Amino acid sequence: MVQNAQLDNEKSALTYQVELLKDKIEDLEETLSLLQREHRDKCRDFENLKRLSNQIKEELEYYKAQLHEREELIKVLDCEFLTFVCCYLLCTK
Amino acid sequence: MVQNAQLDNEKSALTYQVELLKDKIEDLEETLSLLQREHRDKCRDFENLKRLSNQIKEELEYYKAQLHEREELIKVLDCEFLTFVCCYLLCTK
Repeated sequence: MVQNAQLDNEKSALTYQVELLKDKIEDLEETLSLLQREHRDKCRDFENLKRLSNQIKEELEYYKAQLHEREELIKVLDCEFLTFVCCYLLCTK
Repeated sequence: MVQNAQLDNEKSALTYQVELLKDKIEDLEETLSLLQREHRDKCRDFENLKRLSNQIKEELEYYKAQLHEREELIKVLDCEFLTFVCCYLLCTK
């Protein structure tokens, strides 16, 4: 009878422990699920930003090349203008 | 005696269930810990990329403004050159 009662107590304690562990699993699964969603969103945001950043880099290279072209053109125009002024001065001497 | 044996069986089953649940918790905690690290790394990478992307944007704005300035200068040079040529032609008529 005593052994019966002891076994019954142990069984109750184990049943309670099972419930606690199940609750803990539920909490962990919920935390994991939230983090998985957050991580998926962050990965998507990262990929979008990477794509956008690459587009901006390409645009930057384009503008750098355009600026270089304009600077070369300015040099040519300066030179042509100077040549023309020199010719003018020589002709009108 | 029969009841004793039954309680003992139930206790064994519960002890086994507790072990299974503890294993599951261990797995979940490990998965969660890995994901937390991965997520932390991804967040750091995202912030770094955002900073870099903003720097490139600023650089792009600078080059756009520089290009605009050069284009205005080319217009002025073109206009000055044309004026000078007209003056030259009028003077040498």
